[in-house]
Amino acid sequence: MPRSAETAGFKFNHTMLRVRDPVKSLKFYTEVLDMELVKTSKFDSFTLYFLAFDHSDGSLTAEEKAERVLSREGILELTHNHGTESDANFQGYASGNTEPGKGFGHIAISVDNLEAACERFETLGVQFKKRPSDGKMRNIAFILDPDGYWIEVVPSGFRT
Amino acid sequence: MPRSAETAGFKFNHTMLRVRDPVKSLKFYTEVLDMELVKTSKFDSFTLYFLAFDHSDGSLTAEEKAERVLSREGILELTHNHGTESDANFQGYASGNTEPGKGFGHIAISVDNLEAACERFETLGVQFKKRPSDGKMRNIAFILDPDGYWIEVVPSGFRT
Repeated sequence: MPRSAETAGFKFNHTMLRVRDPVKSLKFYTEVLDMELVKTSKFDSFTLYFLAFDHSDGSLTAEEKAERVLSREGILELTHNHGTESDANFQGYASGNTEPGKGFGHIAISVDNLEAACERFETLGVQFKKRPSDGKMRNIAFILDPDGYWIEVVPSGFRT
Repeated sequence: MPRSAETAGFKFNHTMLRVRDPVKSLKFYTEVLDMELVKTSKFDSFTLYFLAFDHSDGSLTAEEKAERVLSREGILELTHNHGTESDANFQGYASGNTEPGKGFGHIAISVDNLEAACERFETLGVQFKKRPSDGKMRNIAFILDPDGYWIEVVPSGFRT
Protein backbone atom coordinates (compact mmCIF):
# COMPACT_ATOMS: atom_id res chain seq x y z
CA MET A 1 0.00 0.00 0.00
CA PRO A 2 1.56 3.36 -0.95
CA ARG A 3 2.56 5.43 2.03
CA SER A 4 1.52 8.71 0.50
CA ALA A 5 -1.41 9.80 -1.63
CA GLU A 6 1.05 11.92 -3.60
CA THR A 7 2.95 8.87 -4.75
CA ALA A 8 0.14 6.36 -5.00
CA GLY A 9 0.28 6.50 -8.79
CA PHE A 10 4.04 5.94 -9.03
CA LYS A 11 5.25 2.88 -10.89
CA PHE A 12 8.69 1.62 -11.87
CA ASN A 13 7.67 1.76 -15.48
CA HIS A 14 10.71 1.04 -17.64
CA THR A 15 14.43 0.72 -18.16
CA MET A 16 16.02 2.15 -21.28
CA LEU A 17 19.00 0.70 -23.11
CA ARG A 18 20.60 2.00 -26.28
CA VAL A 19 21.08 -0.65 -28.95
CA ARG A 20 23.17 -0.60 -32.09
CA ASP A 21 21.05 -2.70 -34.42
CA PRO A 22 17.33 -3.07 -33.75
CA VAL A 23 16.98 -6.02 -36.10
CA LYS A 24 19.38 -8.04 -33.96
CA SER A 25 18.06 -6.71 -30.67
CA LEU A 26 14.39 -7.22 -31.48
CA LYS A 27 15.15 -10.74 -32.64
CA PHE A 28 16.89 -11.39 -29.34
CA TYR A 29 14.30 -9.85 -27.05
CA THR A 30 11.25 -11.18 -28.87
CA GLU A 31 12.52 -14.62 -29.90
CA VAL A 32 15.03 -15.58 -27.24
CA LEU A 33 13.38 -13.90 -24.26
CA ASP A 34 9.89 -14.02 -25.81
CA MET A 35 9.05 -10.47 -24.86
CA GLU A 36 6.43 -8.78 -26.96
CA LEU A 37 7.00 -5.60 -28.93
CA VAL A 38 4.05 -3.59 -27.70
CA LYS A 39 4.83 -0.18 -29.17
CA THR A 40 7.19 1.45 -31.64
CA SER A 41 7.73 5.21 -31.69
CA LYS A 42 9.66 6.44 -34.71
CA PHE A 43 11.31 9.84 -34.76
CA ASP A 44 13.56 11.50 -37.34
CA SER A 45 16.86 10.40 -35.90
CA PHE A 46 15.90 7.61 -33.53
CA THR A 47 13.28 4.96 -32.89
CA LEU A 48 12.03 3.71 -29.55
CA TYR A 49 10.93 0.10 -29.10
CA PHE A 50 8.89 -0.82 -26.04
CA LEU A 51 8.89 -4.46 -25.02
CA ALA A 52 7.21 -6.37 -22.23
CA PHE A 53 6.28 -9.82 -21.11
CA ASP A 54 2.63 -10.41 -21.74
CA HIS A 55 1.00 -11.81 -18.63
CA SER A 56 -2.53 -11.02 -19.74
CA ASP A 57 -5.20 -13.61 -20.39
CA GLY A 58 -5.07 -12.93 -24.11
CA SER A 59 -8.05 -10.61 -24.17
CA LEU A 60 -6.09 -7.39 -24.73
CA THR A 61 -5.86 -6.05 -28.26
CA ALA A 62 -2.58 -4.73 -29.66
CA GLU A 63 -3.95 -1.21 -29.22
CA GLU A 64 -4.77 -1.87 -25.58
CA LYS A 65 -1.30 -3.27 -24.95
CA ALA A 66 0.28 -0.20 -26.54
CA GLU A 67 -1.92 2.05 -24.44
CA ARG A 68 -0.77 0.32 -21.28
CA VAL A 69 2.91 0.88 -22.05
CA LEU A 70 3.27 3.71 -19.57
CA SER A 71 0.81 2.57 -16.96
CA ARG A 72 2.33 -0.78 -16.10
CA GLU A 73 5.65 -2.02 -14.78
CA GLY A 74 8.20 -4.22 -16.48
CA ILE A 75 8.69 -2.30 -19.73
CA LEU A 76 12.03 -2.44 -21.54
CA GLU A 77 12.68 0.51 -23.83
CA LEU A 78 15.29 0.07 -26.54
CA THR A 79 16.58 3.22 -28.17
CA HIS A 80 18.02 2.97 -31.66
CA ASN A 81 19.88 6.00 -32.92
CA HIS A 82 19.53 5.63 -36.66
CA GLY A 83 22.69 4.72 -38.50
CA THR A 84 24.66 2.99 -35.78
CA GLU A 85 23.88 -0.41 -37.29
CA SER A 86 25.81 0.40 -40.47
CA ASP A 87 28.50 2.70 -39.05
CA ALA A 88 31.80 0.83 -39.36
CA ASN A 89 33.39 3.22 -36.88
CA PHE A 90 30.77 2.69 -34.22
CA GLN A 91 32.54 1.75 -31.01
CA GLY A 92 29.72 -0.20 -29.39
CA TYR A 93 27.83 0.58 -26.21
CA ALA A 94 29.32 -0.07 -22.81
CA SER A 95 27.41 -2.67 -20.83
CA GLY A 96 27.98 -0.74 -17.63
CA ASN A 97 30.09 -3.49 -16.13
CA THR A 98 33.57 -2.42 -17.20
CA GLU A 99 35.70 0.65 -16.51
CA PRO A 100 35.18 3.36 -17.52
CA GLY A 101 31.45 3.63 -17.57
CA LYS A 102 30.75 1.15 -14.82
CA GLY A 103 27.56 1.89 -12.98
CA PHE A 104 24.59 0.25 -14.58
CA GLY A 105 24.76 -3.47 -13.96
CA HIS A 106 22.14 -5.56 -15.64
CA ILE A 107 18.53 -6.29 -16.17
CA ALA A 108 17.10 -9.54 -14.88
CA ILE A 109 14.50 -12.01 -16.00
CA SER A 110 12.98 -14.30 -13.43
CA VAL A 111 11.91 -17.72 -14.67
CA ASP A 112 10.08 -20.65 -13.17
CA ASN A 113 12.70 -23.22 -14.19
CA LEU A 114 16.32 -22.09 -14.52
CA GLU A 115 17.60 -25.31 -16.03
CA ALA A 116 14.92 -25.42 -18.70
CA ALA A 117 15.39 -21.72 -19.49
CA CYS A 118 19.16 -22.16 -19.88
CA GLU A 119 18.75 -25.23 -22.08
CA ARG A 120 16.50 -23.15 -24.26
CA PHE A 121 19.07 -20.35 -24.44
CA GLU A 122 21.82 -22.89 -25.33
CA THR A 123 19.67 -24.28 -28.14
CA LEU A 124 19.09 -20.77 -29.42
CA GLY A 125 22.83 -20.10 -29.48
CA VAL A 126 22.73 -17.42 -26.82
CA GLN A 127 26.05 -16.26 -25.38
CA PHE A 128 26.49 -16.92 -21.69
CA LYS A 129 28.44 -14.71 -19.35
CA LYS A 130 27.90 -17.28 -16.65
CA ARG A 131 26.21 -20.63 -16.82
CA PRO A 132 24.59 -21.95 -13.64
CA SER A 133 27.51 -24.39 -13.33
CA ASP A 134 30.12 -21.61 -13.46
CA GLY A 135 31.42 -20.13 -10.23
CA LYS A 136 29.84 -20.46 -6.84
CA MET A 137 26.35 -19.23 -7.49
CA ARG A 138 24.66 -22.26 -9.01
CA ASN A 139 21.21 -20.73 -8.86
CA ILE A 140 21.70 -17.95 -11.37
CA ALA A 141 22.95 -17.46 -14.88
CA PHE A 142 23.92 -14.44 -16.93
CA ILE A 143 23.36 -14.27 -20.67
CA LEU A 144 24.43 -11.51 -23.05
CA ASP A 145 22.21 -9.57 -25.38
CA PRO A 146 23.49 -8.51 -28.83
CA ASP A 147 25.13 -5.37 -27.41
CA GLY A 148 26.76 -7.28 -24.58
CA TYR A 149 24.36 -6.13 -21.88
CA TRP A 150 24.17 -8.60 -19.06
CA ILE A 151 20.84 -10.28 -18.41
CA GLU A 152 20.59 -12.19 -15.18
CA VAL A 153 18.38 -15.26 -15.29
CA VAL A 154 17.09 -16.15 -11.88
CA PRO A 155 14.47 -18.62 -10.69
CA SER A 156 11.39 -16.95 -9.25
CA GLY A 157 11.72 -19.17 -6.22
CA PHE A 158 15.36 -18.23 -5.54
CA ARG A 159 16.06 -16.73 -2.14
CA THR A 160 19.18 -14.61 -1.91
CA MET B 1 -0.67 -14.24 -23.16
CA PRO B 2 2.82 -15.80 -23.46
CA ARG B 3 3.52 -17.26 -26.87
CA SER B 4 5.40 -20.25 -25.54
CA ALA B 5 4.92 -22.56 -22.59
CA GLU B 6 8.69 -22.46 -22.15
CA THR B 7 8.65 -18.77 -21.44
CA ALA B 8 5.31 -18.44 -19.68
CA GLY B 9 7.07 -17.88 -16.35
CA PHE B 10 9.43 -15.17 -17.61
CA LYS B 11 9.18 -11.75 -15.99
CA PHE B 12 11.21 -8.58 -16.35
CA ASN B 13 12.08 -8.75 -12.70
CA HIS B 14 14.64 -6.06 -11.91
CA THR B 15 17.22 -3.51 -12.93
CA MET B 16 20.45 -3.22 -10.99
CA LEU B 17 22.39 -0.03 -10.37
CA ARG B 18 25.57 0.37 -8.35
CA VAL B 19 25.40 3.12 -5.77
CA ARG B 20 28.17 4.79 -3.84
CA ASP B 21 26.42 5.53 -0.54
CA PRO B 22 23.36 3.49 0.45
CA VAL B 23 22.33 5.96 3.13
CA LYS B 24 21.89 8.66 0.51
CA SER B 25 20.43 6.33 -2.09
CA LEU B 26 17.93 4.67 0.23
CA LYS B 27 16.82 8.07 1.48
CA PHE B 28 16.28 9.13 -2.12
CA TYR B 29 14.47 6.04 -3.34
CA THR B 30 12.32 5.53 -0.24
CA GLU B 31 11.57 9.14 0.65
CA VAL B 32 11.63 11.00 -2.63
CA LEU B 33 10.27 8.28 -4.87
CA ASP B 34 8.45 6.52 -2.02
CA MET B 35 9.60 3.08 -3.05
CA GLU B 36 9.68 0.48 -0.32
CA LEU B 37 12.79 -1.40 0.74
CA VAL B 38 11.46 -4.94 0.56
CA LYS B 39 14.63 -6.93 1.06
CA THR B 40 18.25 -6.45 2.08
CA SER B 41 20.89 -9.07 1.35
CA LYS B 42 24.19 -8.44 3.07
CA PHE B 43 27.37 -10.14 1.95
CA ASP B 44 30.98 -9.70 3.10
CA SER B 45 32.00 -7.08 0.59
CA PHE B 46 28.69 -5.81 -0.73
CA THR B 47 25.05 -5.39 0.16
CA LEU B 48 22.05 -5.64 -2.14
CA TYR B 49 18.97 -3.52 -1.55
CA PHE B 50 15.75 -4.47 -3.32
CA LEU B 51 13.15 -1.75 -3.72
CA ALA B 52 9.69 -1.66 -5.25
CA PHE B 53 6.55 0.35 -5.37
CA ASP B 54 3.93 -1.26 -3.21
CA HIS B 55 0.70 -1.59 -5.13
CA SER B 56 -0.80 -4.15 -2.80
CA ASP B 57 -3.91 -3.61 -0.74
CA GLY B 58 -1.88 -3.52 2.45
CA SER B 59 -2.51 -7.12 3.37
CA LEU B 60 0.98 -8.42 2.63
CA THR B 61 3.41 -8.83 5.50
CA ALA B 62 7.03 -7.72 5.23
CA GLU B 63 8.01 -11.37 4.86
CA GLU B 64 5.54 -11.87 2.04
CA LYS B 65 6.83 -8.76 0.25
CA ALA B 66 10.40 -10.02 0.58
CA GLU B 67 9.38 -13.41 -0.74
CA ARG B 68 7.82 -11.81 -3.80
CA VAL B 69 11.01 -9.95 -4.69
CA LEU B 70 11.91 -12.34 -7.49
CA SER B 71 8.46 -13.28 -8.65
CA ARG B 72 7.14 -9.86 -9.56
CA GLU B 73 8.15 -7.11 -11.94
CA GLY B 74 9.28 -3.58 -11.13
CA ILE B 75 12.12 -4.34 -8.70
CA LEU B 76 15.08 -1.97 -8.44
CA GLU B 77 18.23 -3.58 -7.08
CA LEU B 78 20.87 -1.26 -5.66
CA THR B 79 24.33 -2.74 -5.17
CA HIS B 80 26.60 -1.16 -2.61
CA ASN B 81 30.21 -2.26 -2.69
CA HIS B 82 31.29 -1.63 0.88
CA GLY B 83 33.66 1.26 1.37
CA THR B 84 32.86 3.40 -1.65
CA GLU B 85 30.91 5.84 0.52
CA SER B 86 34.03 6.82 2.48
CA ASP B 87 36.66 6.43 -0.25
CA ALA B 88 37.94 9.92 -1.05
CA ASN B 89 39.45 8.63 -4.29
CA PHE B 90 36.23 7.08 -5.52
CA GLN B 91 35.56 8.40 -9.01
CA GLY B 92 31.80 8.01 -9.01
CA TYR B 93 29.65 5.81 -11.20
CA ALA B 94 28.88 6.70 -14.78
CA SER B 95 25.19 7.32 -15.40
CA GLY B 96 25.41 5.69 -18.81
CA ASN B 97 24.59 8.91 -20.60
CA THR B 98 28.07 10.30 -21.24
CA GLU B 99 31.09 9.05 -23.16
CA PRO B 100 32.77 6.76 -22.41
CA GLY B 101 30.37 4.32 -20.90
CA LYS B 102 27.29 5.45 -22.73
CA GLY B 103 24.79 2.66 -23.17
CA PHE B 104 22.41 2.41 -20.28
CA GLY B 105 20.08 5.36 -20.35
CA HIS B 106 17.71 5.68 -17.47
CA ILE B 107 15.00 4.17 -15.39
CA ALA B 108 11.55 5.70 -15.48
CA ILE B 109 8.76 6.26 -13.03
CA SER B 110 5.27 6.77 -14.37
CA VAL B 111 3.01 9.00 -12.31
CA ASP B 112 -0.61 9.99 -12.47
CA ASN B 113 0.06 13.74 -12.26
CA LEU B 114 3.36 15.05 -13.64
CA GLU B 115 2.94 18.59 -12.35
CA ALA B 116 2.15 17.46 -8.83
CA ALA B 117 5.00 14.97 -8.84
CA CYS B 118 7.48 17.61 -9.99
CA GLU B 119 6.28 20.10 -7.39
CA ARG B 120 6.89 17.45 -4.81
CA PHE B 121 10.39 16.79 -6.12
CA GLU B 122 11.14 20.54 -6.09
CA THR B 123 9.99 20.77 -2.49
CA LEU B 124 12.24 17.85 -1.60
CA GLY B 125 15.22 19.58 -3.18
CA VAL B 126 15.65 17.02 -5.94
CA GLN B 127 18.01 17.89 -8.78
CA PHE B 128 16.40 18.13 -12.18
CA LYS B 129 18.11 17.21 -15.40
CA LYS B 130 15.07 18.53 -17.26
CA ARG B 131 11.98 20.17 -15.89
CA PRO B 132 8.77 19.79 -17.89
CA SER B 133 9.17 23.41 -19.01
CA ASP B 134 12.69 22.81 -20.39
CA GLY B 135 13.12 21.97 -24.04
CA LYS B 136 10.44 20.77 -26.38
CA MET B 137 9.05 17.79 -24.53
CA ARG B 138 6.70 19.37 -22.02
CA ASN B 139 5.18 16.09 -20.95
CA ILE B 140 8.22 14.56 -19.32
CA ALA B 141 10.84 15.44 -16.74
CA PHE B 142 14.16 13.95 -15.74
CA ILE B 143 15.42 14.02 -12.18
CA LEU B 144 18.79 12.82 -10.89
CA ASP B 145 19.39 10.31 -8.15
CA PRO B 146 22.33 10.73 -5.74
CA ASP B 147 24.76 9.05 -8.16
CA GLY B 148 23.58 11.12 -11.08
CA TYR B 149 21.48 8.37 -12.69
CA TRP B 150 18.70 9.80 -14.79
CA ILE B 151 15.14 9.03 -13.75
CA GLU B 152 12.49 9.91 -16.28
CA VAL B 153 9.19 11.03 -14.81
CA VAL B 154 6.35 10.46 -17.21
CA PRO B 155 2.59 10.67 -16.81
CA SER B 156 0.86 7.30 -17.10
CA GLY B 157 -1.51 8.81 -19.61
CA PHE B 158 1.25 10.14 -21.88
CA ARG B 159 1.24 8.88 -25.44
CA THR B 160 4.56 9.02 -27.26
